[in-house]
Amino acid sequence: MVKQMIAPSILSAQRLNLQADIDQAVAAGVDMLHIDLMDGVFVPTLSFGPAFIKDIRTITQVPLDAHLMVCNPEHYLDEVIAAGADLINVHVESTQHIFRLIQLIHAAHKKAGVVLNPGTAVTTIAPLLATVDNVLVMTVNPGFGGQAFIDAMLEKIQQLAQLKAQHNYNYTIEVDGGINDQTIQQCAQAGANIFVAGSYIFDHQIASQIQKLQQALK
Amino acid sequence: MVKQMIAPSILSAQRLNLQADIDQAVAAGVDMLHIDLMDGVFVPTLSFGPAFIKDIRTITQVPLDAHLMVCNPEHYLDEVIAAGADLINVHVESTQHIFRLIQLIHAAHKKAGVVLNPGTAVTTIAPLLATVDNVLVMTVNPGFGGQAFIDAMLEKIQQLAQLKAQHNYNYTIEVDGGINDQTIQQCAQAGANIFVAGSYIFDHQIASQIQKLQQALK
Amino acid sequence: MVKQMIAPSILSAQRLNLQADIDQAVAAGVDMLHIDLMDGVFVPTLSFGPAFIKDIRTITQVPLDAHLMVCNPEHYLDEVIAAGADLINVHVESTQHIFRLIQLIHAAHKKAGVVLNPGTAVTTIAPLLATVDNVLVMTVNPGFGGQAFIDAMLEKIQQLAQLKAQHNYNYTIEVDGGINDQTIQQCAQAGANIFVAGSYIFDHQIASQIQKLQQALK
Amino acid sequence: MVKQMIAPSILSAQRLNLQADIDQAVAAGVDMLHIDLMDGVFVPTLSFGPAFIKDIRTITQVPLDAHLMVCNPEHYLDEVIAAGADLINVHVESTQHIFRLIQLIHAAHKKAGVVLNPGTAVTTIAPLLATVDNVLVMTVNPGFGGQAFIDAMLEKIQQLAQLKAQHNYNYTIEVDGGINDQTIQQCAQAGANIFVAGSYIFDHQIASQIQKLQQALK
Amino acid sequence: MVKQMIAPSILSAQRLNLQADIDQAVAAGVDMLHIDLMDGVFVPTLSFGPAFIKDIRTITQVPLDAHLMVCNPEHYLDEVIAAGADLINVHVESTQHIFRLIQLIHAAHKKAGVVLNPGTAVTTIAPLLATVDNVLVMTVNPGFGGQAFIDAMLEKIQQLAQLKAQHNYNYTIEVDGGINDQTIQQCAQAGANIFVAGSYIFDHQIASQIQKLQQALK
Amino acid sequence: MVKQMIAPSILSAQRLNLQADIDQAVAAGVDMLHIDLMDGVFVPTLSFGPAFIKDIRTITQVPLDAHLMVCNPEHYLDEVIAAGADLINVHVESTQHIFRLIQLIHAAHKKAGVVLNPGTAVTTIAPLLATVDNVLVMTVNPGFGGQAFIDAMLEKIQQLAQLKAQHNYNYTIEVDGGINDQTIQQCAQAGANIFVAGSYIFDHQIASQIQKLQQALK
Repeated sequence: MVKQMIAPSILSAQRLNLQADIDQAVAAGVDMLHIDLMDGVFVPTLSFGPAFIKDIRTITQVPLDAHLMVCNPEHYLDEVIAAGADLINVHVESTQHIFRLIQLIHAAHKKAGVVLNPGTAVTTIAPLLATVDNVLVMTVNPGFGGQAFIDAMLEKIQQLAQLKAQHNYNYTIEVDGGINDQTIQQCAQAGANIFVAGSYIFDHQIASQIQKLQQALK
Repeated sequence: MVKQMIAPSILSAQRLNLQADIDQAVAAGVDMLHIDLMDGVFVPTLSFGPAFIKDIRTITQVPLDAHLMVCNPEHYLDEVIAAGADLINVHVESTQHIFRLIQLIHAAHKKAGVVLNPGTAVTTIAPLLATVDNVLVMTVNPGFGGQAFIDAMLEKIQQLAQLKAQHNYNYTIEVDGGINDQTIQQCAQAGANIFVAGSYIFDHQIASQIQKLQQALK
Repeated sequence: MVKQMIAPSILSAQRLNLQADIDQAVAAGVDMLHIDLMDGVFVPTLSFGPAFIKDIRTITQVPLDAHLMVCNPEHYLDEVIAAGADLINVHVESTQHIFRLIQLIHAAHKKAGVVLNPGTAVTTIAPLLATVDNVLVMTVNPGFGGQAFIDAMLEKIQQLAQLKAQHNYNYTIEVDGGINDQTIQQCAQAGANIFVAGSYIFDHQIASQIQKLQQALK
Repeated sequence: MVKQMIAPSILSAQRLNLQADIDQAVAAGVDMLHIDLMDGVFVPTLSFGPAFIKDIRTITQVPLDAHLMVCNPEHYLDEVIAAGADLINVHVESTQHIFRLIQLIHAAHKKAGVVLNPGTAVTTIAPLLATVDNVLVMTVNPGFGGQAFIDAMLEKIQQLAQLKAQHNYNYTIEVDGGINDQTIQQCAQAGANIFVAGSYIFDHQIASQIQKLQQALK
Repeated sequence: MVKQMIAPSILSAQRLNLQADIDQAVAAGVDMLHIDLMDGVFVPTLSFGPAFIKDIRTITQVPLDAHLMVCNPEHYLDEVIAAGADLINVHVESTQHIFRLIQLIHAAHKKAGVVLNPGTAVTTIAPLLATVDNVLVMTVNPGFGGQAFIDAMLEKIQQLAQLKAQHNYNYTIEVDGGINDQTIQQCAQAGANIFVAGSYIFDHQIASQIQKLQQALK
Repeated sequence: MVKQMIAPSILSAQRLNLQADIDQAVAAGVDMLHIDLMDGVFVPTLSFGPAFIKDIRTITQVPLDAHLMVCNPEHYLDEVIAAGADLINVHVESTQHIFRLIQLIHAAHKKAGVVLNPGTAVTTIAPLLATVDNVLVMTVNPGFGGQAFIDAMLEKIQQLAQLKAQHNYNYTIEVDGGINDQTIQQCAQAGANIFVAGSYIFDHQIASQIQKLQQALK
């Protein structure tokens, strides 16, 4: 059985003191750090680039999960790999050459994920399911703050879990957006394994918030 | 006479502890902070977005200089203004509506600058010179690290200084790229007033590096 | 049961005297007016913009159906809503953020529709079907005049009708392109509810053409 | 000496009854009709397309002046020519092949104009001045409503008038934006020949407004 | 039963002596020539344009198969048709108007094919299957050299073969990428009919390589 | 004094037997071969890519002049350099980072040229003139066949020659488009040094056509 992993999104950490927040999260025993690269074109927000991954790599051994919300993921791949990302998630809507990107990620011995916007159907990624290591289901619209979890995405998670069981696929199922101690349970029940949480963790006392999520998963 | 201003570029500060580096720079008496928004499209690097300006605004009263290296500056204008930038520099190469952007910046009671890539001629911005508060001369190619100061840009600074004197224009002349205690003197002699320095300041002892630049300007 | 609605497309009305044609259509008892915004980029034709919706709103209470055939629907949304559109139809092929657009339309208390080009499969919009108020099936290629109804689209209408029945979805099914007193019957039988007609109505005596369509639906 | 021409911009006419307003303007003795094609991409507004030119051609013999504010002017050229435009104005900022567009317009025996946004310098069109029939100086930012005439553009008009005198060029000088009975005089004195006016004419009693402009030019 | 056809890809022929290689291939009895138009935008490689098709048409009667790997297939259609292509294959990922392109190809009395990148699902082209004459399954990523056949594509071929049998569709199934005397058999068994081979044929003795493929198909 | 050089454009050579035509041109004593990369986006024609340069490099020692008519010249630079080009000409209209491209070409110890479309003014490249090795003046519109030499370009050549003399610049002046035994003389008199000729050479007996051009230059 796949371990259930909590991955704080550093997008919600305090920007001017990232290390402090990351250190706290790591100390609290998180399984992964989720790093959102946004270019202001694929999504309306401009967050930060691969150099942040590189610097975070120097302060922690925790696996790093790079989420590329950019209009030209090919352009960033080498740099993100060199920066030390362990899992690289690429939006299927962002490239006409998703299969090749997955091959390139694998050739660098990294884990490759494909991401689905809320409006994107699971059937569109059918040819990728046997190959990817992760499917990231956006549970809010990417690149917009202050959104509520979209309940309708639970069905998408279930669909992915069923396909996985049916075909013996190997991917993990990750969720990102609106995750709190309630929605994490719904997602886990639907079949998700990796849980990204941002403001839920960093807007309050970090360690205790992570604990609440860990509790909720038990 | 216009005061000469030193503006550290936080692009070169330590990314995971920005506040610490900014605090040091501010304590050392800098005149302005230069914040480079890069989107990975207008320039190949993805740096960070307006949210960083907003957070920096909360920790210092020093004027903030937003340098937009983005493919769609219109998209960011409101957010950059709301974030608290005092001077907003827009690349003439990045928009077909530079005049309107300057008007919008002025309407928000902020200072408006126009930026020239190394290959862009001063003549192309002739209709803007009576209106802008600042002209930023890129003295390296924007968005690429580790570059040497391009000597040929001194002529461009001189040209802008002459036009200013001749027509009684009000703009300051800012330089960005490869600034150290040697090139700052060359730029000052050519007529520049605002000096952006990045790795020269942040790759060493911040306060003493700023002092060296201040010395060089005397 | 959903009422069957006839929606004249003002794209085919006489451009220099729109009010006259619209008044006639309204007097003839149409259920809705269909307004095609085309930008010459998403489709090769440049038709007209949201200002026309705003003006039409001032002369009639008939529901207005805005059909966005534009490359950047996000850019127009606020203006189209403010102009007074009641139903806003967005092409799934025109945005990577269709779910968010639907949410924004709903947040403005308007009806949201998703549009399918003839080559776009119903399966690609699976995650939207529980949310949208309308699915618009293009029965010709959008943005090109003088085309014949594509018979193969009847199967798409049936498929949407079946999914609706099966899952208890709430959307109406709209058809646009090549609608006349023959094809309207075929579409109605296949399960369509809203029927856009352009040249069939406006190239002849408006009132009697609308009557013929109304007859055909009985 | 070139005749001075007043060209009402039908962008400001009542959209649902264009013919009525156009008829009035024509009856008042205008010299030309100015038709603004905007695609929502080159400028933020989507106005209308070439089909309007074609229809206007059927109701008047007055010369038609097509102003292309579109991102791909090549795409529209044939249609605009076939529609019956007499003067076709293309933005230098909208194409990398402006010389070819002018050649194509001339090959169709139409007059070719080049348009300058407020921020675009006259020097950038130097190689076109011997060839074009018209230079259109934007005196507001294109595609935005409710703007005031930009005084700084008077210098650009003067510069074009001087170059024309000096080199014996044949172009007319057209102004568009914020034209009223005051600014028309300033523009005329600076050397302009064709005066586009929109809301000044159509927001009030059309014939008398045109008369005021004609008076102002005397 | 559909004849099985071998189509050498001239992309792998010696560029400076194309006629020599083409003559050899034709003499060896190939069924078709496959010509890859790549624009360096839709795929990273810039190969060659429609003029090559036109010239090849003058030296052989063999059917020509144009494979458009370009970002704007609409732009090339007329030229490719006039050049003498018999089958025109368009990527579904390259246009929002695939149905119209197929109609235009058919209107010119040519065969129309739709191409699927490795990551593109068969379900996305469901509305096209009743109409197209050919479905081209990319068995490597388009536009990249030296790639191995992707085994996972065999399933896609089978899926297309099943749909064809089930619905009585008329399309041929073409494969392109990594085809040699082993993979051609796998593809044939899965249901493919047209086999594109490049370096396998042209990097060695052309006639004997074609023979090996012909043998493998028996 | 700079030697005057004739550079046949292989765009006009017979596409299926390039080697034969190139061999003839080389035997006739040409000084350079001009190779036009066109991507169908920056210019409407799709010609061929860098692989042709690489292959031509293997059959001749004559200097190769790569003319990049592509929308993203950065993308091709490494490949063109590796292919063996000696002079690389980049359109100023095709990139916002022309200075950097020139630096990269120089860093590879190749000659760097900047190209001006017919409508582009010399003043726009002022900051490049001290740095470039070549300025290529388009004397027809790039990417369109069958065009006549544009006489107005002679003034541009003269302007470049004057600036060169005045400032002691080192660039050669190249002309491309409509060159024959008449226009070559006009261009030489105006100050050009490198003469690209296409159909004039390859549409007739190659050696004698080259001789005529050589004669004309004496």
